[in-house]
Amino acid sequence: MLPPPYTAVIFSSVRTSGADDEYAAAAARMEELAAEQPGYLGIESARGVDGFGLTVSYWRTADDARAWKRVAEHREAQRRGREEWYATWTVRIATVEREYGSPDDGR
Amino acid sequence: MLPPPYTAVIFSSVRTSGADDEYAAAAARMEELAAEQPGYLGIESARGVDGFGLTVSYWRTADDARAWKRVAEHREAQRRGREEWYATWTVRIATVEREYGSPDDGR
Repeated sequence: MLPPPYTAVIFSSVRTSGADDEYAAAAARMEELAAEQPGYLGIESARGVDGFGLTVSYWRTADDARAWKRVAEHREAQRRGREEWYATWTVRIATVEREYGSPDDGR
Repeated sequence: MLPPPYTAVIFSSVRTSGADDEYAAAAARMEELAAEQPGYLGIESARGVDGFGLTVSYWRTADDARAWKRVAEHREAQRRGREEWYATWTVRIATVEREYGSPDDGR
C-alpha cells in the first residue's frame, strides 16, 4: 500500500436470499481481475451471515478506480449484481487521507 | 445520510481466535454510543467466518470522527481491542466525495 492520499471505493451490499453458485465464483474472479488493473493497491472484503457485506478496493487515483468500473467483464458483473445478486447496494468513492494500525497489519 | 463530502473511518481487523463473550457486547455498545455522538451519520459492519471484518463509520466532519475516537468509553474499548480482540487492525480516515446506489439503499 502507498502512503495516503489514495482512493478507496466502499461498496456496501445486501445479498439477495437463495442459493447462487455463480456468485462466489464471480466475486473471486472480480478480485483477481481488479488486481491486474493499473493503480490497484488492494482489496478487503467481509460479509456476515446476515447477508450484509462490505468490500473496499484501494486505488492510486480516482481515475484508476473509474477505469476499473468500466472494464467490460466488470461491467457485466455489475449488471448481474444489480439484477440478481444484491437486494440493495451503495458505492462511495473516497480519498484516504490518513492511516494507522497495528505493527503487523500489512499496510 | 448527508450529500458528500463527509468523513468515513474504515476500520479493518482480524479477530483473535478463541471465544470471547464480551466482544460482541462491547461491539454492540460501541455502535450504540457512536450513534449518540455529534456529527454521527451512520455505521456499517460486516465480519466473515474467517475472522476478517470491516466497519465503516460515517461522520459529518473529520473533527467529529476525531472527537469520537477520544470518547473515554471508546478509548477503553480501543485498548481492549488492541490487547485482546484483534490480531491485526488498520484505521483509514477518508473523505467521501461521491456516492450512488440502488434506489432503496437507505442513503
